[in-house]
Amino acid sequence: MNKSIIIGVMGGGKASPKDTNAAYRLGGLIAEQGWILLNGGRNTGIMDASAKGAKDHGGLTVGILPDDNPGRASKYIDIPVITGMGSARNCINVLTSHIVVACPGGAGTLSEIALALKFNKVVILMDFDVGKLFESYIKPNIKQGTLVYTKTPEEVIAYCKKLHIQKEGVLRNFDVF
Amino acid sequence: MNKSIIIGVMGGGKASPKDTNAAYRLGGLIAEQGWILLNGGRNTGIMDASAKGAKDHGGLTVGILPDDNPGRASKYIDIPVITGMGSARNCINVLTSHIVVACPGGAGTLSEIALALKFNKVVILMDFDVGKLFESYIKPNIKQGTLVYTKTPEEVIAYCKKLHIQKEGVLRNFDVF
Amino acid sequence: MNKSIIIGVMGGGKASPKDTNAAYRLGGLIAEQGWILLNGGRNTGIMDASAKGAKDHGGLTVGILPDDNPGRASKYIDIPVITGMGSARNCINVLTSHIVVACPGGAGTLSEIALALKFNKVVILMDFDVGKLFESYIKPNIKQGTLVYTKTPEEVIAYCKKLHIQKEGVLRNFDVF
Amino acid sequence: MNKSIIIGVMGGGKASPKDTNAAYRLGGLIAEQGWILLNGGRNTGIMDASAKGAKDHGGLTVGILPDDNPGRASKYIDIPVITGMGSARNCINVLTSHIVVACPGGAGTLSEIALALKFNKVVILMDFDVGKLFESYIKPNIKQGTLVYTKTPEEVIAYCKKLHIQKEGVLRNFDVF
Repeated sequence: MNKSIIIGVMGGGKASPKDTNAAYRLGGLIAEQGWILLNGGRNTGIMDASAKGAKDHGGLTVGILPDDNPGRASKYIDIPVITGMGSARNCINVLTSHIVVACPGGAGTLSEIALALKFNKVVILMDFDVGKLFESYIKPNIKQGTLVYTKTPEEVIAYCKKLHIQKEGVLRNFDVF
Repeated sequence: MNKSIIIGVMGGGKASPKDTNAAYRLGGLIAEQGWILLNGGRNTGIMDASAKGAKDHGGLTVGILPDDNPGRASKYIDIPVITGMGSARNCINVLTSHIVVACPGGAGTLSEIALALKFNKVVILMDFDVGKLFESYIKPNIKQGTLVYTKTPEEVIAYCKKLHIQKEGVLRNFDVF
Repeated sequence: MNKSIIIGVMGGGKASPKDTNAAYRLGGLIAEQGWILLNGGRNTGIMDASAKGAKDHGGLTVGILPDDNPGRASKYIDIPVITGMGSARNCINVLTSHIVVACPGGAGTLSEIALALKFNKVVILMDFDVGKLFESYIKPNIKQGTLVYTKTPEEVIAYCKKLHIQKEGVLRNFDVF
Repeated sequence: MNKSIIIGVMGGGKASPKDTNAAYRLGGLIAEQGWILLNGGRNTGIMDASAKGAKDHGGLTVGILPDDNPGRASKYIDIPVITGMGSARNCINVLTSHIVVACPGGAGTLSEIALALKFNKVVILMDFDVGKLFESYIKPNIKQGTLVYTKTPEEVIAYCKKLHIQKEGVLRNFDVF
């Protein structure tokens, strides 16, 4: 395996069929780029769907689990990282991802968006309107700590490419330009 | 010392004079009730101001620090809890608080509001409009996992009292009713 | 409350009557010095006994709990810090303590001794022979990262005093000299 | 990639040439079995050497980093998991590993051995005498929470195979029998 980009996909443990379908397609597209998919690792909602999408398309999947055992891990996760730290693992999710994609979700997902922006990550919202709360993070030029709106998995991937994340530098520096 | 209620005060490390003044008054009122003030422990913004308010009014203050040493602790913190875990300590802030008060802040504060709601805490916003993002958490009857809007420190205290948090049960069960 | 020294008392969740009696006496002596007792916060073994000792002698007690709720907290803990992080909270136990006292215990206690030495704390063993494993940390002159053998609670307290921990500097710098 | 076994390799950030050579060989042998190598991820000592060994032999490597950025990651780590939690990440190291191998190291490594035994992992010591401290964990029949002495990388691998860790069950249940 060559060094690769890690794309974090956040989103609800409970999710609508529309949202899980989109997450599945996103996972597949991430795999097709040769990127690693990272998520919260559980066998429900956006986590399970995005991991399945990646696996069905030959990808590698990493799940950062809140539990202290792998009992609730998605079967589509290759590398279950067992933290035993509950929601404190949300920090690890976003710190480890070169780019964070947020699908619709509840309070847990919102905490991950907030933490990602605090850690100066680019956060791409996929069909998820977070209202005016984070609007100060929407900037004319994409840079670290920026929030981006998209509607579809294809748009997410286009944005990731635009960020030139394939550069070697990304892996070491977490720089996106 | 008798068993006591722990009120968590979240808010920006950078804050306007108006907001730090309000945080100082809130800290003082918390101390006057005989409650413990908990915050993120650092020597800036809402953290420093609320701790000073509590100390100037005879209170006890607990600071949950992100650093692995107490070098940036506020001098108004009696018990600096040194986590060495960065923003992962935000989980501890809200889990340890019986009630969470959120003053104006940035992404870190928003992550704490989100985590508190996820953990089924009552979150009282003090002069902090978070828009529609969390609006599904605003409920007609206050219960766990509810978001409440207030304008002043006095209103915050009134709400805390309304929650009957002086009940012994709060300490053991984190129930608010 | 004035600024005070925090003494961490580690030890088994299961403990012999002899060891819990000694832990109770140690807690009492810590309280009598006006120091704060910190431990793992649970309602069993060395944790419960040392907290009870401190409370029976007018002390203040802080418990760093592994759970995400206070259900298993000792009733002798004044300030239950709820981490939800399992054994990762062992780091917080030792980082927060100015001096770490280790009573007999199992693997959890050994991890705390190891982490404390890694964090350059003075670790005082009380009637607990850890064999040659940590012997490189036993030094002729006590300094940070040193392991000290004692037999009784009274000897522990004498050592703490010898370290001049009453100095203001301890609180801010974690220096013991 | 098929589901695979994760072998955690712990050991000092500073290490002798003899120990880093052995760690390099161990990493290579782990890779040759098709297993994933996990370690603390940094670019020094046992971590760097074992990761290099695995990469030179076509393996996949996961590093659980204490830092909040990948600046000190080994270049032989494929998946740098960024925790920002300092030594609290030691818990993640051992929870995530199906079997823990401990090479010679200091207090950090000892904390990992202790935590692994607490979490009921099999810990294989490689040319590392930990004296009588953990001797109660050496048992006639290998089971969870057991400490095993070995001398060479080859012996470590033989033990891992003996544990039938290739069974599918290991991945989901962390059972070794």
